[in-house]
Amino acid sequence: MGYTAAIAGASGYAGGELLRLLLDHPEIEVGAVTAGGNAGTPLIEHQPHLRPLADRILAPTTVEELRGHDVVYLALPHGQSAEIAEQLGDDVLVVDCGADFRLTDAATWERFYGTPHAGTWPYGLPELPGQRERLTEAHRIAVPGCHVTVATLGLFPGLAEQLVEPDLTVVAVTGTSGAGKAPKPHLVGSEVMGALSPYGVGGKHRHNPEIIQNLTAVAGQSVSLSFTPVLAPLPRGILSTCTAPLAPGVTADQVRAAYEATYADEPFVDVLPEGTWPNTAMTLAANTTAVQVTVDPDAGRMVAVAALDNLTKGTAGGALQSTNLALGLPEATGLPRTAVAP
Amino acid sequence: MGYTAAIAGASGYAGGELLRLLLDHPEIEVGAVTAGGNAGTPLIEHQPHLRPLADRILAPTTVEELRGHDVVYLALPHGQSAEIAEQLGDDVLVVDCGADFRLTDAATWERFYGTPHAGTWPYGLPELPGQRERLTEAHRIAVPGCHVTVATLGLFPGLAEQLVEPDLTVVAVTGTSGAGKAPKPHLVGSEVMGALSPYGVGGKHRHNPEIIQNLTAVAGQSVSLSFTPVLAPLPRGILSTCTAPLAPGVTADQVRAAYEATYADEPFVDVLPEGTWPNTAMTLAANTTAVQVTVDPDAGRMVAVAALDNLTKGTAGGALQSTNLALGLPEATGLPRTAVAP
Amino acid sequence: MGYTAAIAGASGYAGGELLRLLLDHPEIEVGAVTAGGNAGTPLIEHQPHLRPLADRILAPTTVEELRGHDVVYLALPHGQSAEIAEQLGDDVLVVDCGADFRLTDAATWERFYGTPHAGTWPYGLPELPGQRERLTEAHRIAVPGCHVTVATLGLFPGLAEQLVEPDLTVVAVTGTSGAGKAPKPHLVGSEVMGALSPYGVGGKHRHNPEIIQNLTAVAGQSVSLSFTPVLAPLPRGILSTCTAPLAPGVTADQVRAAYEATYADEPFVDVLPEGTWPNTAMTLAANTTAVQVTVDPDAGRMVAVAALDNLTKGTAGGALQSTNLALGLPEATGLPRTAVAP
Amino acid sequence: MGYTAAIAGASGYAGGELLRLLLDHPEIEVGAVTAGGNAGTPLIEHQPHLRPLADRILAPTTVEELRGHDVVYLALPHGQSAEIAEQLGDDVLVVDCGADFRLTDAATWERFYGTPHAGTWPYGLPELPGQRERLTEAHRIAVPGCHVTVATLGLFPGLAEQLVEPDLTVVAVTGTSGAGKAPKPHLVGSEVMGALSPYGVGGKHRHNPEIIQNLTAVAGQSVSLSFTPVLAPLPRGILSTCTAPLAPGVTADQVRAAYEATYADEPFVDVLPEGTWPNTAMTLAANTTAVQVTVDPDAGRMVAVAALDNLTKGTAGGALQSTNLALGLPEATGLPRTAVAP
Repeated sequence: MGYTAAIAGASGYAGGELLRLLLDHPEIEVGAVTAGGNAGTPLIEHQPHLRPLADRILAPTTVEELRGHDVVYLALPHGQSAEIAEQLGDDVLVVDCGADFRLTDAATWERFYGTPHAGTWPYGLPELPGQRERLTEAHRIAVPGCHVTVATLGLFPGLAEQLVEPDLTVVAVTGTSGAGKAPKPHLVGSEVMGALSPYGVGGKHRHNPEIIQNLTAVAGQSVSLSFTPVLAPLPRGILSTCTAPLAPGVTADQVRAAYEATYADEPFVDVLPEGTWPNTAMTLAANTTAVQVTVDPDAGRMVAVAALDNLTKGTAGGALQSTNLALGLPEATGLPRTAVAP
Repeated sequence: MGYTAAIAGASGYAGGELLRLLLDHPEIEVGAVTAGGNAGTPLIEHQPHLRPLADRILAPTTVEELRGHDVVYLALPHGQSAEIAEQLGDDVLVVDCGADFRLTDAATWERFYGTPHAGTWPYGLPELPGQRERLTEAHRIAVPGCHVTVATLGLFPGLAEQLVEPDLTVVAVTGTSGAGKAPKPHLVGSEVMGALSPYGVGGKHRHNPEIIQNLTAVAGQSVSLSFTPVLAPLPRGILSTCTAPLAPGVTADQVRAAYEATYADEPFVDVLPEGTWPNTAMTLAANTTAVQVTVDPDAGRMVAVAALDNLTKGTAGGALQSTNLALGLPEATGLPRTAVAP
Repeated sequence: MGYTAAIAGASGYAGGELLRLLLDHPEIEVGAVTAGGNAGTPLIEHQPHLRPLADRILAPTTVEELRGHDVVYLALPHGQSAEIAEQLGDDVLVVDCGADFRLTDAATWERFYGTPHAGTWPYGLPELPGQRERLTEAHRIAVPGCHVTVATLGLFPGLAEQLVEPDLTVVAVTGTSGAGKAPKPHLVGSEVMGALSPYGVGGKHRHNPEIIQNLTAVAGQSVSLSFTPVLAPLPRGILSTCTAPLAPGVTADQVRAAYEATYADEPFVDVLPEGTWPNTAMTLAANTTAVQVTVDPDAGRMVAVAALDNLTKGTAGGALQSTNLALGLPEATGLPRTAVAP
Repeated sequence: MGYTAAIAGASGYAGGELLRLLLDHPEIEVGAVTAGGNAGTPLIEHQPHLRPLADRILAPTTVEELRGHDVVYLALPHGQSAEIAEQLGDDVLVVDCGADFRLTDAATWERFYGTPHAGTWPYGLPELPGQRERLTEAHRIAVPGCHVTVATLGLFPGLAEQLVEPDLTVVAVTGTSGAGKAPKPHLVGSEVMGALSPYGVGGKHRHNPEIIQNLTAVAGQSVSLSFTPVLAPLPRGILSTCTAPLAPGVTADQVRAAYEATYADEPFVDVLPEGTWPNTAMTLAANTTAVQVTVDPDAGRMVAVAALDNLTKGTAGGALQSTNLALGLPEATGLPRTAVAP
C-alpha cells in the first residue's frame, strides 16, 4: 500500500461507497474515518456492510483528524469543504464529492446554491476531452454530480462532433440513494416503493447548470437543456434518456461511429452492441457506464441512453478513478468493471 | 343492475382490472368471463384478488359465450378482435382494450403491427376535444394505449392552444404490468427489481404513432415526437415527462391557465396545485390522471408531467369511462377517484 | 348517510386508510379530520391519494373538533386516547386504532408500554368467539394490532378445538407501512428496499402479549408464544406463518375441517382451497384475510399461514367492521372484498 | 493464476455468480463457459453485468468442453451432474452446485426428488464440525442448498452443545433469485413485487431433509424440523428465523457464549454485537453470514436469526470457499467480506 486516505463524511452513502471501494484498492489504505453528528460512534453501526472495518470508531471531522494522509475525501454537505481544504497543504490530494468546487461561474453557483462561490477545482471526469491530462497534475479534484456524469457521458460525443443541435432534453430516472441517508418524509420506504415522482422540474435541479457547463465546453457553443430527474423505487442506479435534434445531413451511422470512436479506449464507458440498451442492473456496484445511441428518423432526433450506478461511477468510483490519475497510478486500479446482478 | 358485460381475456391483467372495477359498478353486472388457453380453469386461480368471483370458471373465448350481453370487453392479443366484433350485432357495445382499431391510417398500422389493418373505431379518450360527444353514440370503442392516454393528456392542452411548437419529447417511466402476465425472461422479478431499462427506443414503440395521431388532430398541424418508455421496478403506474419548445411570446401563466381551463370540468384529470408534482402513488387503482406543468425559462420549454395507473385510467378504467358514456350513464359511474396509498 | 365520523390523526397511514374506506362507505360521512403537528395544513398534502378530500384542512386534534360526530376514530400515538375519550359521551362511538385499551392486564401493559394502564375496551375482532355479539353493544372499541389480527386468525381455530398444543411459534413478514409515516433512519427507502430485517425479536414486540391474551382466552389455558416480525420491502401486507405441535391423535383432516367450519360464515376470512397458499397480494387494500392450514407429519406440527393488508383488515378495515356492528349496520357495509392486483 | 475452472450452466444465476467471483479470484482463471439451450450465444447476452467476459461465447455443456480444467463447476438442473462427473477423472475437482450429491440417504433422496439417488459427495459447508478437514482432501464437493446453509449456520451451535431441544421451527424469508432465471408465471415481476407468499409448506421443500441431515449429525440425535420458506420482493438474500425450546436450565449467557465460541474463528460467519440483528443488506454480494441469537424467557425458546446472500455464501461463494480448501489455498482467497449497500 503506497498511500493512505481519510474519509470525511464516512457515515453517509457516498462515504460508505468510498470505503467499500478503497477496501479493494491495492494501493490506498483506509486511514481516518470521520463524521459530524455521528462522531464517536462505531462506523459499523452506520455501514453494517463494511465488516472489515468493524473495529473503527468515527472521529470528528476536523483538520487534525484528516491531516497526515496522502488523500482526503470530502463527502460533506455543500459549503463545508472550502474551510477544510484551505488548511490542508498542496501536498495532500483533496477530493471533494460535494458540489462546492464544480461550477466555474460564480453567479450561476449563487443562483443555484444561494451561498458565496468557493472557487473551482479540476473537474473529475476523465472522459471529457483533455480532462484526463489535467487530472494527472491535480492536487484538488471536484467530483461531478451523479446526474451530471451520466448525462455528460450520454451526450457529449454527439455534441463534440456537431452531430446534433445543442437543444437538449434529458430525463433521468434515478434510485433513492442519491438523496442521501437523512430521513425525510418523501424518502420513507412506504412512500418510495410503488411510486414514481419527478423533482427539480423546470430547470431547478442543481445538476442542471453543471451539465450545461460540461456540454457547452464540449460543443464550443451555448447549449440549451431541459433536465428532469424522476425518483423510482430502487436504491441505486440512474438511467438517463438524452435527446437532441440531429444536425442537417447527419446519418445514424455517423452517430454510432462517433460514440464508438469516443469511447473505444475508455476503461469505464461501454458502448453496447447495436440493439442492446443500457439497464442500470448492468452497472450495479461497478464503475462502468453503459451507453447506447440511435437515431429516430421520424422525429429527426438522436436518442442516447446512459446508465450507471450513482454511488459508484456516479460518485465514489469516479472519485477513485480521478484519484488514480492524480496519484500517477493506472487509472483503473482497484475499480470494478464487474457488476452485481441480479 | 341495468346491464350485463362479458369479458374476453379475463385471466390477464387488463381483464382482471376490468373485473375489479365492474364488481363495484352499480349498473353493470359481470356476465361471461372467457379466456384462451386458460379456459376451463377457475378464474380465481388467475385472479386470486377477485374473491367475489371465486366460483367462476373461465369459458372459452367464443362468440357464443360473449353474445347476449349488453357490453363485451375484449382484452385480447392484437389481431383477434375484428372477427369477434363482426359477429356481434350493433346492439352490443363492444369495447376493445387491444390495439386493433385505434389507428386511422392503414399504412401506419401495417408498419408498426405488421398485419392488415382491421379498421378504426371511435376512440375512447373522452377528454379529447369533441370526443365525449362522439362516444355517447358509439357502439364500438377502441380503448387507447396506456402510454397514449398519459402522453396525450400531458400534452394536448399546450398544443391545442398553440402554446408550444409541435416538436415533442416524451419519456415515460412505467411499471411492469403493462407488459402483461405472460412470463418472459426480461420480466422475471429478479431481473426487474433494482433495474431501470428503456425499450422501443427511437420511435419503435407501437404507442408512438397513436400519440402522434392524437396530438396531430389536436394541434391541427403535423407533430414530431420522440418517445422513450423506461421500465421501472413497480407493478403499476406510468409517469410521463413531456416537453416541447415554448411558442414565441408565450408565458408560464398562459400555459398554466390553459391546462387549468382544459381540465377544470374533467372528472378524472387533476391539475395539481402549483409546485406539487404528480406521483404515480396518487393514482394507484384510481381512474385519475395527475397533471402538472411548468415553464423552464432557460431552456425555453414547457415541461408537463402526467401520472396515472396504466391498468385503471390507462386501460380498464378508461374503458369503463367510455362505456358509461356510450350507455348513457353518468360518466363517472362506478369509477374510483380515491387511490390506494401507501 | 346516517352517520358522521371524525378522524383524529388523519395525516398518518391509519388515518388515511380510514378515510379511503369511509369515502366508499354508504352510511358514514367524513366529518372533522384532525392532526397534531400537521394541523392547519391541507389534508391533501399528506394524503395526495384522497382527491375527493382535496379541499379539507386539518383541524387540531381537540375534543371540540371531534365532538358532535356519531363516531370518532382515534389514530394517535399511544397514550393520547384516554383523555380524549373521557370527554366524549357514551352516545359517541369511539374507536381507538391505537394500543391504549387493548390489553386487559395492567401489569402486562406497563411492562410492554412503560406507562400507566388506561383501561380495557371491547376488543374489535368480531371473528373471536362471542366477540361479534359484544361489539353490537359497544360504544368504545379497541382495534387490535395488525400483527395480532393476523396471528389470531391464523391460530385460533386450532387452539379453540384443542387440536394443537399451546406452544406457538409465529414469524410474521410485514411491509413497512405498519411502522408509520414518521421518517426514521432504518425506514428510509434506500435502507428498506433489498433488505429483510427482524425486529422486536425474543418476545419484545408489543403485539406479543396481545396475541397471547387472545389465544389464551380461546384455548382456555395458558399459551406460550415465540413471535418474530420481519420487515420486508413492500408497503403493505403481513404474511404470518404460525406453527404448533399437533395434539396426540389429531389428523390433517380434522385440522382442515376445524378451520373451514370456523370461518365458513365469516365475511372477511377466506380459507383457501387445499393446496393454495395465502399471498399478501390477494388481500391488498381489501378487508379480507386469506388462510390456509396443513399438517407436517414428519415434524408433528400444524402449519397455518394467514395474510392480510395491515392497513385494511389489519387496522382501518377492521375498525370499520366493528363500527358497523356497533352501529347496527350489516357487518360488511362499505368494506371491500376485492383486492388490488397486481 | 495457478488454476483454471470451467463453469457448466454459465447462463443461469448460480453460474453468473460463480463467474463474478472467479473474476476477482487471484488464483483461478475462468476457462470454458458452457450452457444447454443457450450454447452458441454470447455469454454477455445472459450476464450483461460481466463486462470483462464480453467476448465469450457459450459452449455446449459436454465433457469435452469441461475437460482439461483443474476445477469444474456444475450449475445444472438436478439429475445431470453424475454422468458428467463420472467422465472427469479424480485429478479434476468437481464442484456441484446442484442437489444431486447432497443427501446421504437414498430413500430420502427418492422421496423428495423422485429419481434414483446418484450418491453422496463431501459436503461443502466448512463451518460444520470436522468438515473443513474433509474438504481439504476432496476432489468432489456437493455445495449445500442455500436455505440449508443459512438454517444450519443459524442453528447448529445451539444443537451441538445440547442447549436446545431438537424440535426446530425455521421460517426463511427469501428473495427471488433462488428460484432461478427460467420465466414462470408466479415469478413475473408484477406478481412478485408487493407480494409475500410461502411455498413448500408442511415439510415439502427439498431443502427440508438436507437441513435435518446436517442438524441430526451435529446434535447426535434425531431432530424434528418445521421449515417454511416465504418469497419476498427482493432479488437476493435469505433471512432465516430459527427457534427451538431451551433445554432445561440453560441460560441466555450460555447460548450467546456457544455461538460466539463456535464462530470466533470463522472467516465468513459474523455473530453480531448483542442487540444488533441480521439484515440481508449487510451481506449482499458478500460471502458472509450474519448471525444473532437471543433467548425468549417467556416462551422458553432460543431464537436465532441468520442472514446471507443466497447466491454468494448460499451458493457460489460457498462453492469457492470449499474450492479453496480442496485446492490447498487459504480458505478466504478471493472471497468478499464487504457487502454492497444500500
